[in-house]
Amino acid sequence: MQYIILSGGSGKRLWPLSNDVRSKQFLKMLPGEDGEPESMLMRVYRQIRAVDGRAEVTIATGKKQVSGIRNQLGGKVNICVEPDRRDTFPAICLAAGFLRDEQGISEDEAVVVCPVDPYVEQTYFLALQEMAELAVSGTADLVLLGMEPTYPSEKYGYIIPSCREAVSGVETFREKPDLETARKYLQQGALWNGGVFACRLGYLLGKSRERIGFSDYRSLYERYEALERISFDYAVAEREKSICVLRYQGTWKDIGTWNTFAETMDREAMGRVTMNETCVNTHVVNELNIPVLCMGCKNMIVAASGDGILVSDKEQSSYIKPFVEEMTGQVRYAEKSWGSFTVLDVQEESMTIRVVLKEGNSLHYHSHEHRDEVWTVAKGTGTALLDGVKRQVFPGDVVSMPAGCRHTIYADTELQLIEVQLGRGISVEDKVKYDGDLKEDGVSG
Amino acid sequence: MQYIILSGGSGKRLWPLSNDVRSKQFLKMLPGEDGEPESMLMRVYRQIRAVDGRAEVTIATGKKQVSGIRNQLGGKVNICVEPDRRDTFPAICLAAGFLRDEQGISEDEAVVVCPVDPYVEQTYFLALQEMAELAVSGTADLVLLGMEPTYPSEKYGYIIPSCREAVSGVETFREKPDLETARKYLQQGALWNGGVFACRLGYLLGKSRERIGFSDYRSLYERYEALERISFDYAVAEREKSICVLRYQGTWKDIGTWNTFAETMDREAMGRVTMNETCVNTHVVNELNIPVLCMGCKNMIVAASGDGILVSDKEQSSYIKPFVEEMTGQVRYAEKSWGSFTVLDVQEESMTIRVVLKEGNSLHYHSHEHRDEVWTVAKGTGTALLDGVKRQVFPGDVVSMPAGCRHTIYADTELQLIEVQLGRGISVEDKVKYDGDLKEDGVSG
Repeated sequence: MQYIILSGGSGKRLWPLSNDVRSKQFLKMLPGEDGEPESMLMRVYRQIRAVDGRAEVTIATGKKQVSGIRNQLGGKVNICVEPDRRDTFPAICLAAGFLRDEQGISEDEAVVVCPVDPYVEQTYFLALQEMAELAVSGTADLVLLGMEPTYPSEKYGYIIPSCREAVSGVETFREKPDLETARKYLQQGALWNGGVFACRLGYLLGKSRERIGFSDYRSLYERYEALERISFDYAVAEREKSICVLRYQGTWKDIGTWNTFAETMDREAMGRVTMNETCVNTHVVNELNIPVLCMGCKNMIVAASGDGILVSDKEQSSYIKPFVEEMTGQVRYAEKSWGSFTVLDVQEESMTIRVVLKEGNSLHYHSHEHRDEVWTVAKGTGTALLDGVKRQVFPGDVVSMPAGCRHTIYADTELQLIEVQLGRGISVEDKVKYDGDLKEDGVSG
Repeated sequence: MQYIILSGGSGKRLWPLSNDVRSKQFLKMLPGEDGEPESMLMRVYRQIRAVDGRAEVTIATGKKQVSGIRNQLGGKVNICVEPDRRDTFPAICLAAGFLRDEQGISEDEAVVVCPVDPYVEQTYFLALQEMAELAVSGTADLVLLGMEPTYPSEKYGYIIPSCREAVSGVETFREKPDLETARKYLQQGALWNGGVFACRLGYLLGKSRERIGFSDYRSLYERYEALERISFDYAVAEREKSICVLRYQGTWKDIGTWNTFAETMDREAMGRVTMNETCVNTHVVNELNIPVLCMGCKNMIVAASGDGILVSDKEQSSYIKPFVEEMTGQVRYAEKSWGSFTVLDVQEESMTIRVVLKEGNSLHYHSHEHRDEVWTVAKGTGTALLDGVKRQVFPGDVVSMPAGCRHTIYADTELQLIEVQLGRGISVEDKVKYDGDLKEDGVSG
């Protein structure tokens, strides 16, 4: 059985912990199995495998997230990279093509498509399995998941089922309603649309052929940026006749805002935090290595990261998006496939960064046109490659890379580097990449 | 006319902006004359000189504050350094000895002793001048300043005057009362004790001889640490017969807590701060170079510095002290006579610091036993001295100092260094100082 997990979102609503490269699904803030906090991504993967140890997971996502996914899940999942963000229908078509042409999956195999960000219990994945069975057994070509609504929400689309059975046909779909209309839907027995679909792989490929002339994965990838932005709901589900919906009654939270995110936390504070006894219903997440002291905070969210500090009333925190859009600051912390980086200091003509390379990893071989760089090795041992010349480095060693110098470094053990960038107008765009990989020993002096 | 300004206090109540070396009087958060924020220290000095352009100012303080005072006032003031903190009577005796023996001040000259931290208008210093005139004209040996109380405060000592004239004798002193007693004092026409004294220099020296056997400044300095801790009020004022009090009715704020400090700010936010329209009566000070976003904050103080982050209800902020006492973290930002340092990153075996040296300044010539250090020059030009050998440095240059290497650097222009310290158990105690000063060209290779 194949899972396609749609991993999108810029994560502005959970600023300052989420940013352009660290979407909310990567935040390690949920209570994990072994007491260690885990991310939404890690949680969903763990839950899928707990229900079906042989399930194969493909993550459909943009380029920016690849490194973060590899950092958290390593090689355990496939990643289908969208060259551009084009909404769910093109993303699902591309992933379907990827499964057939790159992974060799049979068109008869069941596929479940689900978002990465619902906070759910194991029973949700049992329901997904049931959906897949309904799809392959021929009950309907397309199977949806309908959440039993708990309140008249304006945030969700609604599915009007044709009867009140656990599995039923679909009368019609309704877009996000206003409060009054939502109340009427609830009286009519409507269900929230959970954004989950199950079908055979061949069904997805057929729809791709019909609507966007799909032939194979590679050619779709090439013309992906020219595809129309359209959702799977609109392009497929709302037009399908052979369709059914499975009711699901378990916990299902959309943790897209600080307010709902806080509800999933199993502790009030994460990181270096002191709260005095007059704090009430307040959640604090501190990723900085300086202490946070909260006194007399009521119904608040406090979150601090290298990107900034949020101090918000819980209810107000849902209005964060426009403010964050104005803060077009540089990303100050990011997890990458090879490790992570943290911006420590930004001055007019210099920037200081802590780079952590995981053992056995290396940076791309690259150079900068407009800035010099200096590494001080703070921890670990590694092999630097500078204009084709290899050099072993140890703690306290310094590597100077003037503008134009091609450089990379390989971590023999976990490496911590303090990198000082020097020059005017330091920019992430100023990077020329070269072939050559220290791990493969392909380049040497 | 001589001013002795008592500059004490650890500044715990204004954490995280104040710390052991940056007491509250150094925080540049008050609205200055030219729109630039100024500190309490800078403000008091400016106000004194505005009233009397020839006034001489001596700051009585501990060792830790010397560098900060020089940073803000340069050589404009004298500094009388207390070898240890011993309360106000010993501090005033030492300063009196310093004025006579080190500065050659006549015993007949008027001296005004005042604290560094009241937030007052110019009229306050006019009153201080009047006090000095009363003291030298012989109205009384000791002249006090009595503040007209505006409410029955439990925070202040009270002076009971013998009549209701502008200048009157003193009936008696009262320690900080409870609320009920404070109300009675107000009905009796009592005044708050402002902690200000005026007298002739000879008067102070006489009291020093009487109580602690003062002979001269140097010998008092030597045995300072053995002196009894006692306040000037208790040791002198409360026993004095030839005493009078001058009434003062102008603005007088004790800005020792965040709540009162916020009242003096002329803006709601300092630094990179965004507050949405639902914030009410909230003050935010951000010294970090990452943005702070506040939403729906009501009656709050938010303060962020390299030492930590405070998020507090205004009323609760007065109870901060015990919490801060538990956070015995390292000082992460300090202003020194030669410039400033900011701790950027602390890891198990390394620490990264930004050092800014003002033009024409240098560090002490020193070495470390247990750590290596590496400087990357981020900005400016300078002259490094390493084990006696001089070397010119420019942006991008790297200076490596293994443990034991004697080192300093002189700033030809303002210098920014990124210093990486490497080793286990990095400590400020690990420092050996040497003679040798680059400015005087006394040491060379």
